[in-house]
Amino acid sequence: MKILISNDDGYLAPGIIALANALAPIAEIVVVAPDSNRSGSSNSLTLDRPLTVQRAENGFYFINGTPSDCVHVALTGMLNFRPDLIVSGINQGQNMGDDTLYSGTVAAATEGFLFGIPSIAFSQVSKGWEELDAAAKVAREIVERQFATLPQPFLLNVNIPNLPYDQIKPPIATRLGKRHVSEPVIKTKDPHGREIYWIGPAGAAKDASEGTDFCAIAQGHVSVTPLQIDLTHAAQLLALSKDLL
Amino acid sequence: MKILISNDDGYLAPGIIALANALAPIAEIVVVAPDSNRSGSSNSLTLDRPLTVQRAENGFYFINGTPSDCVHVALTGMLNFRPDLIVSGINQGQNMGDDTLYSGTVAAATEGFLFGIPSIAFSQVSKGWEELDAAAKVAREIVERQFATLPQPFLLNVNIPNLPYDQIKPPIATRLGKRHVSEPVIKTKDPHGREIYWIGPAGAAKDASEGTDFCAIAQGHVSVTPLQIDLTHAAQLLALSKDLL
Amino acid sequence: MKILISNDDGYLAPGIIALANALAPIAEIVVVAPDSNRSGSSNSLTLDRPLTVQRAENGFYFINGTPSDCVHVALTGMLNFRPDLIVSGINQGQNMGDDTLYSGTVAAATEGFLFGIPSIAFSQVSKGWEELDAAAKVAREIVERQFATLPQPFLLNVNIPNLPYDQIKPPIATRLGKRHVSEPVIKTKDPHGREIYWIGPAGAAKDASEGTDFCAIAQGHVSVTPLQIDLTHAAQLLALSKDLL
Amino acid sequence: MKILISNDDGYLAPGIIALANALAPIAEIVVVAPDSNRSGSSNSLTLDRPLTVQRAENGFYFINGTPSDCVHVALTGMLNFRPDLIVSGINQGQNMGDDTLYSGTVAAATEGFLFGIPSIAFSQVSKGWEELDAAAKVAREIVERQFATLPQPFLLNVNIPNLPYDQIKPPIATRLGKRHVSEPVIKTKDPHGREIYWIGPAGAAKDASEGTDFCAIAQGHVSVTPLQIDLTHAAQLLALSKDLL
Repeated sequence: MKILISNDDGYLAPGIIALANALAPIAEIVVVAPDSNRSGSSNSLTLDRPLTVQRAENGFYFINGTPSDCVHVALTGMLNFRPDLIVSGINQGQNMGDDTLYSGTVAAATEGFLFGIPSIAFSQVSKGWEELDAAAKVAREIVERQFATLPQPFLLNVNIPNLPYDQIKPPIATRLGKRHVSEPVIKTKDPHGREIYWIGPAGAAKDASEGTDFCAIAQGHVSVTPLQIDLTHAAQLLALSKDLL
Repeated sequence: MKILISNDDGYLAPGIIALANALAPIAEIVVVAPDSNRSGSSNSLTLDRPLTVQRAENGFYFINGTPSDCVHVALTGMLNFRPDLIVSGINQGQNMGDDTLYSGTVAAATEGFLFGIPSIAFSQVSKGWEELDAAAKVAREIVERQFATLPQPFLLNVNIPNLPYDQIKPPIATRLGKRHVSEPVIKTKDPHGREIYWIGPAGAAKDASEGTDFCAIAQGHVSVTPLQIDLTHAAQLLALSKDLL
Repeated sequence: MKILISNDDGYLAPGIIALANALAPIAEIVVVAPDSNRSGSSNSLTLDRPLTVQRAENGFYFINGTPSDCVHVALTGMLNFRPDLIVSGINQGQNMGDDTLYSGTVAAATEGFLFGIPSIAFSQVSKGWEELDAAAKVAREIVERQFATLPQPFLLNVNIPNLPYDQIKPPIATRLGKRHVSEPVIKTKDPHGREIYWIGPAGAAKDASEGTDFCAIAQGHVSVTPLQIDLTHAAQLLALSKDLL
Repeated sequence: MKILISNDDGYLAPGIIALANALAPIAEIVVVAPDSNRSGSSNSLTLDRPLTVQRAENGFYFINGTPSDCVHVALTGMLNFRPDLIVSGINQGQNMGDDTLYSGTVAAATEGFLFGIPSIAFSQVSKGWEELDAAAKVAREIVERQFATLPQPFLLNVNIPNLPYDQIKPPIATRLGKRHVSEPVIKTKDPHGREIYWIGPAGAAKDASEGTDFCAIAQGHVSVTPLQIDLTHAAQLLALSKDLL
């Protein structure tokens, strides 16, 4: 099996190193990741300037672009083979509920999926890299499952609690929960007296009911959400048709 | 009616000026848009640095950030009122099919929708701003419809053919089509001999069948697609559950 | 006379608009300036990505690069004529003493000088654009002097007090003063708890004695400092030679 | 002796690693360098956003800013001691003649000098890191000289030929040479048909006469140029005074 690994925390992040180390024994791996932290970059693609590929001493490739750029470049010109699987992460911090829209980690997996390749995004729920080894072990187990009964290609969003391995409960299938709207921007002044705005933190969980990723995580499970990327609101098509008459 | 206007081409783009001019007679408008072209920025949010808001001579506000940043800052700290509607565009170039995932124009509208406000993204199908006046007139008509029979808030993605006004056919409700995978990256060298990669163009339409945005546009109609933002692949939940046992 | 105008505050800044308006009656002017504020950019050149040139409605050209980039591109590929003079500014805020090293305004003029063209940098001493009309009138008068007795090409750094025109004293030739070292960085935390550092303000004047730019400005004069760009410390060459034996 | 090390190629560049390794046996060293390649950044300071400091596994600190930012932050808030010496490099590629104006490597040393600390910039003449070990050995020898007979603080610009150690001739004191004007920008189109401009290479040596850095290097010597930072053209002050009457 050949696996392409990317992330949005940058090629130096502990999460991608742990993930690469966990998967190297079971697959041929290649790492192509952003040169620096690109958290919050969503599916952003770099269209107005060219990208460069460099190789680090440990063999990882890094690109001066977004997570989507990395997977896109790897698949359409850089690699001379087609990966069997694309994995992204392990992200520092959860990607649950509406967060998935903004996540560069999920975006890297989505880019692979758009090219017809099964893809999995991995995130640790809490920041700080605690219990990263456990998360990497879980990630490897999930990769080994192969998901043969799912339609191919699939796109999975996996969140892992920061717990010791033997306290992590089995993975369960979940739907994305909902969050309350974000906290307000933090309006302050820089030291030169100019008004500046910092984007505030995400909102608290609003729908964390049974079956959601929030609920699974709260119970100590690994949350695995199957994703799709068709944004059409099919249920509204008829009403909209009437409204447009 | 109070309308917040944003885009991803930047506050100086002809498309947002035309849109603001078209809506000013029917609503109280405020423009908050990126300081420069941010095409392809998707739902990217700027988390690692603060943002600043400036005001241009024509009254437009501009922010050194992404389309999502602009709407986010406007709604959570900058404006002292809650808009009744958020519109984004008019974008230079189509946002149809899978493109919507990458679009900053659609992302600006999505950000408004996430805050519970009805939002509409407008794009002209071809680049070059031809027949922009016609597109602006169409945009105004769509805003005036108000879509009272749709569940609130709604999120609409509108694509408008670059045709003279009297040749544009009525708006019809569509689903997003599908594209073939993107063209390969263009691998070349910069003048200093370094290898560089340019992201290639989007793929051709793959599913442009009856009912899609591609089909509507090909027939000269305005395409209006209702969007939702829950990426959960509900139909796979059961299969995945079994697979995880 | 043909004059190329640039700055470091960006092509939309009031200072460059005032300067262009003041010079248009006495010369053929072309404006090529950064697309956004590039204060503090020094002689920085953009080597790792290509630049694009756009034209605003008022005829100004703007480039997604530094002040040095703008003059460099204008002179070596964009303009089909060779300017007789390059002017930069009017900058918002003084460029005196050691500041000149960091100044993008001075850098734009320096770039012109390196290509063998007489160049003048203009700055208003205080921020906020007060008495900008007076500064523009002074700038025009200085351009009209032509400095025929100076060796060609020359490089001048002009600072103008923010005073009403009739209170500004005549221009006098000055040397650069010295500043005390900068204020410390401001160490603080962003709203997410991460430690961040803001570069602090420049230090106070240390050598503001008779003959310096600081002294001239304190007395209400326009300060005109002739610059050179050879950083060789000629007086140390002998001592260093001995030391290296 | 305590030495602060920075560069403009980024903290991962072979040149700074070699320099740190060469100096570690003879001094207490701390490395504070840009997070990525900032070649051509000159004395640019980042004024419009805050900077963050991170620490790599090897103990190097890296900052999301320019070379000048790195030294500035280190000296005015980050380090709890005052270095005895600041060294910058080893740069990939020469910084000779007029290049020194644009060089981020020289700028890092200049920033230290502005704070009253002796500073030395090191560059290898050719790109590609050939004979880097020899250059590092030379750099160490130059640091060990201490230059007690020079006025303190001093600012030195050292260029080292890419030769095996035993073929490198002794260091000699030089003045900066002069270059011909740069090659024209390279005007081309990106794959989307947009016109783009790449800054062209530096011009050939124009003054490479006896005593210049160009001449020393051509003969296989290490070139050591003492620098000063007062840009005042003292010799023109009188002529300018008359002209302004």
